[in-house]
Amino acid sequence: MQISARNRLKGTVIEVTKGATTAHVRIDIGGGSTVTASITNEAVDELDISVGKTAYAVVKASDVMVAVD
Amino acid sequence: MQISARNRLKGTVIEVTKGATTAHVRIDIGGGSTVTASITNEAVDELDISVGKTAYAVVKASDVMVAVD
Amino acid sequence: MQISARNRLKGTVIEVTKGATTAHVRIDIGGGSTVTASITNEAVDELDISVGKTAYAVVKASDVMVAVD
Amino acid sequence: MQISARNRLKGTVIEVTKGATTAHVRIDIGGGSTVTASITNEAVDELDISVGKTAYAVVKASDVMVAVD
Amino acid sequence: MQISARNRLKGTVIEVTKGATTAHVRIDIGGGSTVTASITNEAVDELDISVGKTAYAVVKASDVMVAVD
Amino acid sequence: MQISARNRLKGTVIEVTKGATTAHVRIDIGGGSTVTASITNEAVDELDISVGKTAYAVVKASDVMVAVD
Repeated sequence: MQISARNRLKGTVIEVTKGATTAHVRIDIGGGSTVTASITNEAVDELDISVGKTAYAVVKASDVMVAVD
Repeated sequence: MQISARNRLKGTVIEVTKGATTAHVRIDIGGGSTVTASITNEAVDELDISVGKTAYAVVKASDVMVAVD
Repeated sequence: MQISARNRLKGTVIEVTKGATTAHVRIDIGGGSTVTASITNEAVDELDISVGKTAYAVVKASDVMVAVD
Repeated sequence: MQISARNRLKGTVIEVTKGATTAHVRIDIGGGSTVTASITNEAVDELDISVGKTAYAVVKASDVMVAVD
Repeated sequence: MQISARNRLKGTVIEVTKGATTAHVRIDIGGGSTVTASITNEAVDELDISVGKTAYAVVKASDVMVAVD
Repeated sequence: MQISARNRLKGTVIEVTKGATTAHVRIDIGGGSTVTASITNEAVDELDISVGKTAYAVVKASDVMVAVD
């Protein structure tokens, strides 16, 4: 499956914190950067997302803001 | 100003394409990765975003999905 | 590739309108329902999205609201 | 009240799971498709969303992605 | 129709700028504050949004960030 | 830091409710209006968001819908 979302950053899952319904997944994308995703617990289970696995942080372009110093 | 958005990826602006109301800004965040942001033309002007400038791609955690192969 | 987004609605592309940077894609998902997606022109080209093709409307659960009469 | 969001899919609530602050609501929109919404517990209470009720899944066009096989 | 989105700010439309596919609508919500919405041209037409009309800026709670100085 | 998000509404934090992973922050922006944000507990801690503090509700223009009566 190919998706229209413009941003796919490959990395390694370094933390999975499940809440009551919502989980936080942290992915190390290299170069000292990490990305945090807030997704459903259900998705964590279905995709079997766990620490040490390769994963992609996927973001639609319209959800990216730009900041400058 | 500090913002609650969990994800801030530092890079260099490599492309700015303005449309009629919406612009696409591409930021090279290193390691062979680029991030595309779809923002208003107005924001491009106000923040003076142009090729070669240092910028951050900022994303709220709830807008990040996770994919696996 | 498997993605964490909870919602994938299968259908047929019935309209593609490209703007200056942003395109609108309309997908007939059956049962008299259509879904409109606002994505980049670039994604339309890359995925070769055109009228008559099978496609999925994909939405993250945190982007879905609920309304009642 | 009329809203600018382009997508309104009518269905029946088939599951409501409340977490600590965030609830997941599943709506059967017919044709074998379900839509999952992640909304606040507060909204579930205020709109009195419960299993068996008619409801709409509402999504802004800029939050819809397109995928192809 | 009642919607789960937690935020509805009432005001007066002070500017409508249509692009090729995407329009920007600016609403004066009083107290010296304005809110800018990026919506489809189609929604502008369907809801007959024009300068001087009363309108609401509607935002899902999961799309609101918090910033501090 | 300057951010591209078009909407920044200044106010006072009047409620912080932490869930298992996700917190709800309510900001009084004056004129009888409040804004609710759903953000990570981690952001609440890092920005030290608490009742009585001055804060801004920040929203990207593409996340704002428009409604009319």
